[in-house]
Amino acid sequence: MSKGEKTKVFILDTGLTLAGEHGLEGVSIGLLAKVTGMSKSGLFAHFNSKENLQLAILSYAAEDFLQQVIVPATKVTRGIPRILALVDNWVSWSDNMSGGCIFASAGTEFSERPGKVRDLLFKQQQLWLNSIVRVAESAISENYFNDKADLDQFAFELYSFLLGINSYRQMLHDPEIEIKKEKALLSLLSRYVKPEVKLENYL
Amino acid sequence: MSKGEKTKVFILDTGLTLAGEHGLEGVSIGLLAKVTGMSKSGLFAHFNSKENLQLAILSYAAEDFLQQVIVPATKVTRGIPRILALVDNWVSWSDNMSGGCIFASAGTEFSERPGKVRDLLFKQQQLWLNSIVRVAESAISENYFNDKADLDQFAFELYSFLLGINSYRQMLHDPEIEIKKEKALLSLLSRYVKPEVKLENYL
Repeated sequence: MSKGEKTKVFILDTGLTLAGEHGLEGVSIGLLAKVTGMSKSGLFAHFNSKENLQLAILSYAAEDFLQQVIVPATKVTRGIPRILALVDNWVSWSDNMSGGCIFASAGTEFSERPGKVRDLLFKQQQLWLNSIVRVAESAISENYFNDKADLDQFAFELYSFLLGINSYRQMLHDPEIEIKKEKALLSLLSRYVKPEVKLENYL
Repeated sequence: MSKGEKTKVFILDTGLTLAGEHGLEGVSIGLLAKVTGMSKSGLFAHFNSKENLQLAILSYAAEDFLQQVIVPATKVTRGIPRILALVDNWVSWSDNMSGGCIFASAGTEFSERPGKVRDLLFKQQQLWLNSIVRVAESAISENYFNDKADLDQFAFELYSFLLGINSYRQMLHDPEIEIKKEKALLSLLSRYVKPEVKLENYL
């Protein structure tokens, strides 16, 4: 990375941490200047507006999500192993983030605020659900799942469990969330797999 | 209600709506004064601090939740009908609220901000999960559920689906969320009910 790129990553990474602590709306150019020790005028010259800063933080988070969650899952065997890798990667990613999943928190934060930030969050949520559906399709083509499996339903239920896990970890600090996660995944997957698939070999 | 009580309800109801639009952290005494047309000094004399205002808004929301979600469910036949009433009441309550469920949004917003607000949110989340468990216990005592049903697991999965429904309605505006909700509930309940219970009579 060039010095300019390194600086940009440092700024956006700090912005993402601040968004976890103060909410995305709480990240102003002034606060970012204070925490990074950079000049407010310099940051303003770069981002022009708070909205652009918020959009840049979300795009940075999405790129990180792609590299930490999606890409490593595509390197795992297609089907059930890949679905489980996607879940594990998501949980690790979310855990490493101050405040948990930025898309979950910013999603609830911006649902009533029309504008470019909400539009981007909407698009990112849809891309995430599409990724779940595509990974689930690999479970059909690899003969794990029934051919007629309702993958939108699967995506809704898996997405819901991930939100629940996020909340149980970040807010409730439930020491048994790992067990609950395993049970929920087992029951979800068992409704989609063909009778000959032995889930206990994977979970 | 006395005039003083009516004024208090008006203030907190406005505060709750503002929390849905701007996040709970976005509700300052200044903003509340502007929107209600009341004097900032008068509001400050009443609440003393932004934190106290946030706590008052959450307590007001919890009382509303109790009256709109929990109490009406306790008037419905114990067991499966009561569980379904709880879910329907929750969805209606969450839909009527600007920004969806305030506890879901404030929970993600405050998970990294130690203090009285986070402590109250934590307590409220636990009370909600306890309510789900108690309603599920009525399904055991009324012979719908197996005696050995893991009700903490049930509560986790139902709670997760409600978060998912909240997100699909508020952020994604999915026109088929009602169908997805029914399918998810059917599959969840079917794992807990005794073989002789016909869920199609209830859903």
